[in-house]
Amino acid sequence: MPNIAASFASDAAPDEPILAQYERVRAQSMRLIKGLSAEDMMLQSMPDASPTKWHLAHTSWFFETFLLQPHLTGYQSFDDAYQYLFNSYYDTVGERHPRPQRGLLSRPSLEEVIAYRHHVDEAMQQLLQTTDAEIEAAVTIGLHHEMQHQELLQTDIKHALSLNPYALPTSNTTRAPSQTPDSADFVEFEGGLSWLGTNAESSFAYDCEQPRHQVFVPDFSLCERLVTNAEWLEFMADNGYQRPKLWLSDGWATAQQENWQAPLYWYQQDNQWWTITGQQRRPLDPNAPVCHISYYEADAFARWRGCRLPTEFEWEHAARAMDLKGHFLESGHSLPQPATSEAKGLKQMFGDAWEWTQSPFSPYPGFKTPEGALAEYNGKFMANQWVLRGGSCATAAQQMRLTYRNFFYAHQRWQFTSLRLAK
Amino acid sequence: MPNIAASFASDAAPDEPILAQYERVRAQSMRLIKGLSAEDMMLQSMPDASPTKWHLAHTSWFFETFLLQPHLTGYQSFDDAYQYLFNSYYDTVGERHPRPQRGLLSRPSLEEVIAYRHHVDEAMQQLLQTTDAEIEAAVTIGLHHEMQHQELLQTDIKHALSLNPYALPTSNTTRAPSQTPDSADFVEFEGGLSWLGTNAESSFAYDCEQPRHQVFVPDFSLCERLVTNAEWLEFMADNGYQRPKLWLSDGWATAQQENWQAPLYWYQQDNQWWTITGQQRRPLDPNAPVCHISYYEADAFARWRGCRLPTEFEWEHAARAMDLKGHFLESGHSLPQPATSEAKGLKQMFGDAWEWTQSPFSPYPGFKTPEGALAEYNGKFMANQWVLRGGSCATAAQQMRLTYRNFFYAHQRWQFTSLRLAK
Amino acid sequence: MPNIAASFASDAAPDEPILAQYERVRAQSMRLIKGLSAEDMMLQSMPDASPTKWHLAHTSWFFETFLLQPHLTGYQSFDDAYQYLFNSYYDTVGERHPRPQRGLLSRPSLEEVIAYRHHVDEAMQQLLQTTDAEIEAAVTIGLHHEMQHQELLQTDIKHALSLNPYALPTSNTTRAPSQTPDSADFVEFEGGLSWLGTNAESSFAYDCEQPRHQVFVPDFSLCERLVTNAEWLEFMADNGYQRPKLWLSDGWATAQQENWQAPLYWYQQDNQWWTITGQQRRPLDPNAPVCHISYYEADAFARWRGCRLPTEFEWEHAARAMDLKGHFLESGHSLPQPATSEAKGLKQMFGDAWEWTQSPFSPYPGFKTPEGALAEYNGKFMANQWVLRGGSCATAAQQMRLTYRNFFYAHQRWQFTSLRLAK
Amino acid sequence: MPNIAASFASDAAPDEPILAQYERVRAQSMRLIKGLSAEDMMLQSMPDASPTKWHLAHTSWFFETFLLQPHLTGYQSFDDAYQYLFNSYYDTVGERHPRPQRGLLSRPSLEEVIAYRHHVDEAMQQLLQTTDAEIEAAVTIGLHHEMQHQELLQTDIKHALSLNPYALPTSNTTRAPSQTPDSADFVEFEGGLSWLGTNAESSFAYDCEQPRHQVFVPDFSLCERLVTNAEWLEFMADNGYQRPKLWLSDGWATAQQENWQAPLYWYQQDNQWWTITGQQRRPLDPNAPVCHISYYEADAFARWRGCRLPTEFEWEHAARAMDLKGHFLESGHSLPQPATSEAKGLKQMFGDAWEWTQSPFSPYPGFKTPEGALAEYNGKFMANQWVLRGGSCATAAQQMRLTYRNFFYAHQRWQFTSLRLAK
Repeated sequence: MPNIAASFASDAAPDEPILAQYERVRAQSMRLIKGLSAEDMMLQSMPDASPTKWHLAHTSWFFETFLLQPHLTGYQSFDDAYQYLFNSYYDTVGERHPRPQRGLLSRPSLEEVIAYRHHVDEAMQQLLQTTDAEIEAAVTIGLHHEMQHQELLQTDIKHALSLNPYALPTSNTTRAPSQTPDSADFVEFEGGLSWLGTNAESSFAYDCEQPRHQVFVPDFSLCERLVTNAEWLEFMADNGYQRPKLWLSDGWATAQQENWQAPLYWYQQDNQWWTITGQQRRPLDPNAPVCHISYYEADAFARWRGCRLPTEFEWEHAARAMDLKGHFLESGHSLPQPATSEAKGLKQMFGDAWEWTQSPFSPYPGFKTPEGALAEYNGKFMANQWVLRGGSCATAAQQMRLTYRNFFYAHQRWQFTSLRLAK
Repeated sequence: MPNIAASFASDAAPDEPILAQYERVRAQSMRLIKGLSAEDMMLQSMPDASPTKWHLAHTSWFFETFLLQPHLTGYQSFDDAYQYLFNSYYDTVGERHPRPQRGLLSRPSLEEVIAYRHHVDEAMQQLLQTTDAEIEAAVTIGLHHEMQHQELLQTDIKHALSLNPYALPTSNTTRAPSQTPDSADFVEFEGGLSWLGTNAESSFAYDCEQPRHQVFVPDFSLCERLVTNAEWLEFMADNGYQRPKLWLSDGWATAQQENWQAPLYWYQQDNQWWTITGQQRRPLDPNAPVCHISYYEADAFARWRGCRLPTEFEWEHAARAMDLKGHFLESGHSLPQPATSEAKGLKQMFGDAWEWTQSPFSPYPGFKTPEGALAEYNGKFMANQWVLRGGSCATAAQQMRLTYRNFFYAHQRWQFTSLRLAK
Repeated sequence: MPNIAASFASDAAPDEPILAQYERVRAQSMRLIKGLSAEDMMLQSMPDASPTKWHLAHTSWFFETFLLQPHLTGYQSFDDAYQYLFNSYYDTVGERHPRPQRGLLSRPSLEEVIAYRHHVDEAMQQLLQTTDAEIEAAVTIGLHHEMQHQELLQTDIKHALSLNPYALPTSNTTRAPSQTPDSADFVEFEGGLSWLGTNAESSFAYDCEQPRHQVFVPDFSLCERLVTNAEWLEFMADNGYQRPKLWLSDGWATAQQENWQAPLYWYQQDNQWWTITGQQRRPLDPNAPVCHISYYEADAFARWRGCRLPTEFEWEHAARAMDLKGHFLESGHSLPQPATSEAKGLKQMFGDAWEWTQSPFSPYPGFKTPEGALAEYNGKFMANQWVLRGGSCATAAQQMRLTYRNFFYAHQRWQFTSLRLAK
Repeated sequence: MPNIAASFASDAAPDEPILAQYERVRAQSMRLIKGLSAEDMMLQSMPDASPTKWHLAHTSWFFETFLLQPHLTGYQSFDDAYQYLFNSYYDTVGERHPRPQRGLLSRPSLEEVIAYRHHVDEAMQQLLQTTDAEIEAAVTIGLHHEMQHQELLQTDIKHALSLNPYALPTSNTTRAPSQTPDSADFVEFEGGLSWLGTNAESSFAYDCEQPRHQVFVPDFSLCERLVTNAEWLEFMADNGYQRPKLWLSDGWATAQQENWQAPLYWYQQDNQWWTITGQQRRPLDPNAPVCHISYYEADAFARWRGCRLPTEFEWEHAARAMDLKGHFLESGHSLPQPATSEAKGLKQMFGDAWEWTQSPFSPYPGFKTPEGALAEYNGKFMANQWVLRGGSCATAAQQMRLTYRNFFYAHQRWQFTSLRLAK
């Protein structure tokens, strides 16, 4: 891993030592399993998802493999078999357990996996006693990697529990109705040549956000806020799911095959629409942003409204002026929140829900795959996926950046995904 | 359930009251989970199999549904949702949870399922304070049903753990080599008209074993013992898995598709063949009966040896004179044992391993589907399956009868299945 | 092929020389393609079926491979590539073209295939100038083989044309309504030990019909005639296709997956049921036997009527006393005909439609696979298939025998299959 | 269809009346079926492809549906059923025959389809006696549509015949070795803001090429010529197909699943590589451009060479200065030809083979779906496909434009696809 330091600098905040960061992020992972049993944490409900226990182990495997084994003299691996069991897709590191069978790993037990975390954490504390730029850079990657898995951990267990009719209790607390969002005016932006992306000189960024480069962005306008559940119900009432002309050809085929009639997790009961939030079933909030939709659905909705989705360049161009604040993981919301501010201008750009853009996930001009064992990172996924921007209520705040490019396949719905209209 | 009493009598042994039987069988189920964690007991490795936890709950559901709810005044169900979750295939009783998703039931927890068992057991003790022929008959079915699930519980968890490379430790105890079996002489039987099956007048039997009827059985001979692992290795060495002319057409297609090269659970390491026994990996015992083979493999082996498989009528005809003794579940063996007796004559007819017969699972002449809620029992499976006879080391001794007909699809291998040659 | 003569004698009729038989059967094949274009004859609508052109070529390949090449001195093959293209499943003869791709054989053209037939026919005429028992026996197999393919040719092209909405004109001739069948009384038969099957001593029979052996057949009764379309409409009106309790478990699963609501080829238009006959669409004749049903449907219907399907032993026992007469291929009917005779007793036992029996296709006691290149015949299909008896309107009369065992999978519907009730 | 005239002008050459164009293009289609039988023209070897006969009918259906029926008074349709059979994907025009079953259309016969073409042609001659701008615009679309199908017709029948081991004779003419291409220097281009796309003001262009818009293109360089077969053999010799690190993740999965080891149609025989050209099998020409590769293979090759694929913007920017000349359909070559010119500079930009670009097929800024029945054209395919540029030896010269965007899925290989390296 000799080239890590070359490819980006550590983003350690001036006042937070790397060890403190490490402890903070690692503790966050353990907070996310609150309310889950060892049995829950074994669930794998589809090949795209992984068991909670696997996420806990895999993120520790990362530190063991890329930090402790090469850099901590005398380090003893916790269990050699874990190399095979908890590798994800790093082909260069060796064979790995087949992804769709992660749900069959009843052994090691949760207890052993937690012991593994402690084992790794203690060794990491030892390693981080002394300062080393290269090591700090690699730890920074490991922490961002763990934050990514924190989000997946939340979406994966949500999907798994949603399939068990017995698992989730119905909310019986009466809730005050949320405030109706203000108008959904469009904010106009003047186009031109714009510098986008980053060179990651002074802080961490993934390979795919690099390098900083110029793009010509024509004039455009963005809606102030995300599309709401109430608006989505209008789309459904207008037969949005039944009209092929609104859909991309691949999207229509998928919607028919999967029998999509509403966003994921929505269901109707007693003449009311319900959804799943955190570990409860709860009536749909009409004022909250629509969530758990595929790219295909987002695209069809935009077409229905005579609009389109923004490009990732428009999004980044527009977001540059804004504070990087929003409802992130730390806010404690398990679903995106209604836009309640009366102020004019863009809202919900950061946090709440990922925004599908119309930009396929492609390399930036001058993109280079970093060398070394961590090099397999993002470049090999640059086909058939779409860029999402802005983060969600399941994203750690520290993970987010203006230039952050998330990406998923157009048919995937289990992430906290929403849309903002553009013209 | 008014017709149960009409269709068969209770097989309560003269000296064992029904409550004592109930407690004995139910306790046996709980003994089988020794060494398994709550996480292990959630595993479902294929649609054919069910999680251990599900078996524990479903067998209790049976007593709750067919005994307690209709017959115990004032009985309170443990949890109404269990009706849906733990129904297996009784269409008349209502909707049921989809079979391939049983592995997603992290909730209810193992703890809750065990509490469910206790709840049912306590109510059953109350119900069985008084004697009632109809109730005893239904309890008898429930106990035989539970014994069937005890066998499935063992084979299902064996399959699930086999897929986890980490789960099963390697045996490190040195074992004395088992004794080489004596000759494999054939015992000749004179044919003729034979009465087979049972009318279940004085003891319990399933619908498919009824009625007693006449069959003309030509002269035949059976091998004294089951085929051994050593003999199977000869078949493999003679390219048995590579010669289409030895195989049924469907069998050859399956073997190619599944890439069968040896019985299930066999693997080669350090120039030695290994297999899985109980919760360990252990070197193959050449003298033990071959086990975990499909009907297709059994049939190909027999053809290779210039023999054939017996019919179920030949088997029953030959077994009638024998004591119903053998290595059953209670013997504590986790694999079939070598035939070591020096006496001449049939061995291993009962226990050790199920014997594939060449008889498709068909209705006996005069077969009638019993009426009532328990009526869906076996008749609807009378297509595309084959009869196996004799029981295995995972079969409770009480479950076995001369007339017992087990049945599986020709491609299935995860049961304790073996073969005996016939001519 | 040295053992053919040993395994059965020729069934040449006393007054029809083998060459005359050859010419008669071969000419029959060519008559069956009347009305079909070269394009029609290329169609393969499912892997189970083959193109007409392939049937014409494959039956010629049989004579070239098993008669001309080994026995006619100086024989020149028509085209060496045909060995590969037109082999069906004779593994011993070499590689073969993959079955599901037979529809891609636009080349050789129909014209070339017909030239191939002529080439083979001329050489066969030469070969059959002299008499030789072994050769006559092999030719006899070849002719029975060709008659089997004549039936498949008809059912395969019917299936293919049925899928083209444009292919089949609607009958516009007014037809007199057929006569309503008389009662459907049951004829009782006394059981007992019965000799069934044949040793093929004096005439041809397939391996699977051999040897003659004893079976104990209990008393039984058979319905005088086949089930009619009108009776099947009653089954449909009584929700026969919607009630799982009437169905075998595998049958119910298939019916749901394939969305069966009526027999194959039935469709409703203008408040009337239509079906396909020959090369036309025509209103359903309520008095004709139901046709194109699977074993699963036949079994469900019988259960609905409180009856069952006969065993093949009952069928053969009952048919023994009857003349081998009926509506076979030569009668020119493209669908089974109503039973119109006023006489009492069994009708439609031969011809009209194949009758599903409840007997799985299994080896008779003492069954031996014949040796030699033709040995792969029927034994390897003895799994998962059911015996059908009696022949159909697409069966050549000469092909039929009392002991003839046809066999298909339980889900297959494209043959001329029907049912007779038994008790 | 009222808006067609509004959206683009006719591209009728100044000196070629629209009727002359019509006759020329229609005659070209008929020339392409030379050497094909009616049986060949029925072949459909995969869902992506269509039978030759279907292409001939569908292109006529287009003129009948969009020109004759709305515009020619008194026009009599040839056959009403053709509306259903030969619609492709125009949802607004009504139901259509399922695409994967096009190979089952033995009826109508080829003869009838050719009569259909004549019928349409005669009516079109009548319609085009008078001049009308709107009609000319629609005819122009129809002709471009037919030229697209001419290319598909060629690639589809090539694929179908390739699967028949008997269909294609081996070339037995000795061929002089082609000239080795000169160096493969890179030509450098200065970047900057570039105007790309077209507004289709003075000539025809598809919706997806519009509107003309500005893009910022960084400096780049392109290889003078396409990658050759000899270079591809080096990639194979260097284990290009076995090294996951060279591949996109989706590409690697596809390559494993499809067992790709070489471009489509390549096979090895007698220590030589062969491929298929036109209607022959012929030794591979090492100097000709590689052809029939997927996007995934093109991308892996470029990575192996330390290069990348060009964007479609780079390609268009570079091609703008060039004459629109090359080996198109009219040149009579059935495979791309070696680059033999000794001149420096870009070669093979037009014709020979389509060049995969790294640009996903996305809407241009300001893209608008045209209204009317022809509106379903290209917009709905803007997901998961990649842009290809430049045309091939199967593309009609008139079809090509600087701004033409062809598009296919990344896994597809049956088109004449190649690659040019970029840096």
